[in-house]
Amino acid sequence: MSKQITISLDAMGGDAGPAMVIPGAALALERRPELRFVLFGDEAKVRPLLDRHPALAAASRLVHAEVVVRMDDKPSQALRAGRWKSSMWKAIEAVKTGEAAVCVSAGNTGALMAMSKFCLRTMAGIERQAIAAIWPTLSGESIVLDVGATIGADAQQLVDFAMMGAAMARAVFASVERPKVALLNVGVEEVKGNEEVKMAGRLLKEADLPELDYTGFVEGDDIGRGVVDVVVTEGFAGNIALKTAEGTAKQMAQHLKAGITRTWLARLGYLLAKSAFDRLKEKMDPRKVNGGVFLGLNGVVIKSHGGTDAEGFASAVSLAYDMAVADLTRRIADGLAHYHRAGGMQPAAEPRGEA
Amino acid sequence: MSKQITISLDAMGGDAGPAMVIPGAALALERRPELRFVLFGDEAKVRPLLDRHPALAAASRLVHAEVVVRMDDKPSQALRAGRWKSSMWKAIEAVKTGEAAVCVSAGNTGALMAMSKFCLRTMAGIERQAIAAIWPTLSGESIVLDVGATIGADAQQLVDFAMMGAAMARAVFASVERPKVALLNVGVEEVKGNEEVKMAGRLLKEADLPELDYTGFVEGDDIGRGVVDVVVTEGFAGNIALKTAEGTAKQMAQHLKAGITRTWLARLGYLLAKSAFDRLKEKMDPRKVNGGVFLGLNGVVIKSHGGTDAEGFASAVSLAYDMAVADLTRRIADGLAHYHRAGGMQPAAEPRGEA
Repeated sequence: MSKQITISLDAMGGDAGPAMVIPGAALALERRPELRFVLFGDEAKVRPLLDRHPALAAASRLVHAEVVVRMDDKPSQALRAGRWKSSMWKAIEAVKTGEAAVCVSAGNTGALMAMSKFCLRTMAGIERQAIAAIWPTLSGESIVLDVGATIGADAQQLVDFAMMGAAMARAVFASVERPKVALLNVGVEEVKGNEEVKMAGRLLKEADLPELDYTGFVEGDDIGRGVVDVVVTEGFAGNIALKTAEGTAKQMAQHLKAGITRTWLARLGYLLAKSAFDRLKEKMDPRKVNGGVFLGLNGVVIKSHGGTDAEGFASAVSLAYDMAVADLTRRIADGLAHYHRAGGMQPAAEPRGEA
Repeated sequence: MSKQITISLDAMGGDAGPAMVIPGAALALERRPELRFVLFGDEAKVRPLLDRHPALAAASRLVHAEVVVRMDDKPSQALRAGRWKSSMWKAIEAVKTGEAAVCVSAGNTGALMAMSKFCLRTMAGIERQAIAAIWPTLSGESIVLDVGATIGADAQQLVDFAMMGAAMARAVFASVERPKVALLNVGVEEVKGNEEVKMAGRLLKEADLPELDYTGFVEGDDIGRGVVDVVVTEGFAGNIALKTAEGTAKQMAQHLKAGITRTWLARLGYLLAKSAFDRLKEKMDPRKVNGGVFLGLNGVVIKSHGGTDAEGFASAVSLAYDMAVADLTRRIADGLAHYHRAGGMQPAAEPRGEA
């Protein structure tokens, strides 16, 4: 049997709170029996739910936390009221103390980011954290970051994101040794885009890092095609890309549903072609790729969608498991140390000639 | 019969050039008999095609242009080689001289933007042009701008985009008197986003313009839901949103297609449920919303997708017709004049309290 992996869970996070987190953790445990949990939450609410899942109860330690961060608390409010004593804070802190390898919360994103940064601090050599999302593509999955941790990023920060994303890609995509990394831009020519993206492109090209294969710029429609393993962008554009893709997928599903339920013939056809629809559903199931990974801190925190169900939460826990097994934080730290030993990046004074 | 409307066409633009443009124009004419065209292109290539469409030939004037801007020319190259004498330039110039009400080209976007700006110049009071796209939504269509004309925009430019987009919305959506306008952001709370977007939000709120109903921030997934008539953003994020949505739609269609053709039962089901698929296709048909409208210049230029077919090009021409009938340029100029008479926007020294 594999080594046990302990994950800390904010049992109160998410729209449904413990009623979703506990069955989700139980599902994840069924799939990965080597998981162990430390759960933080209101004992009076969590214990009865835990009693219904004896295997999970046996694999977990429940720690009472008196404060719950609400889904609509502002980050500053959450920090004031919930530092030290909220279920969210304590779950993050378990990563800091080393009790847990990774933390998962379906709670308020802004609060989770603020608390994670406050508690774990950014890694040496990293200025800003990023949220990495796993994006379903035609050829499998890609990692896209930053999808909203920080607004705006300079060239060096984009390079940091590239390195962190590549480390995560090696952890998540078992077969990828030297992940293909691209910068998201409004065109693929070197003259396109804003100054930060162009400069980051030059830095990555010239650095020719052993950890990643920088392939140049990609555009928005290349993300879903899965042309690279990692797509790097600053948080404003990344968040808009992610939400727009989610919105488009929902919109298409709704058009299709409206069409299918319109006539009995269409309904019959739907039943016969159900395998096709199931395939689409499976390929685009947001629950399967649930989990935004906070990178750049001294420890990994995973944000699950607040509105997800037990199945979706189990996916976020599985992702946490993968990150823990791969020892993601150490991998990123090693990459950074290696890069800094090499003297960081020295951009050429003049941009190179264009392709 | 309605008043005749003359549209100038770059007959050489697009991947297929005149072989797509001429049948496209013929289709548009069938639908809008009051259309008249002035066509610019290589006479030896265009004339034989035109001869196959006698109605179009009768409604058109063909002007020879010796230079063709290639799809991969850089804007600076195109300007050097094609100013004054290319089919693209001449088509734009026809708007300047007043011979045509609107210009349509399926040619090289960068070249078309550069030439349009050089030939028509930005309107008084507008610093930068924007490209507006019509975006299919669950509730119909919305206008999204800027989708890539300019990288980065300050608060005042975003306000300009809002006014131009609202003028276009009144032109395109017949029933909308005071279009709902929102700013694209990474959250709906007033504290979210970058400084430019926050400031633009304050300006629009305080100005309380008669021409538009500013509703606040929307996120990427709200675009496809069609919650507002106009979504305003700067060109980098807007281009990424547009391309990402296109990519996601293609990705889903491809998953569905792969699923449908897999088994004979699924194929049969597809035939029975065809109305549902047709509905989806129709709702998401990129050809139906083909045409990026260049706004902010002294004249309207419409960019058709380069890879579109005759049907798609006809849509772009129909859009041009609508813009011409609505006298879009004058509408925008009137709105700007009104706004400047009112002394422009004076932001309050301090941001207002948050909602």
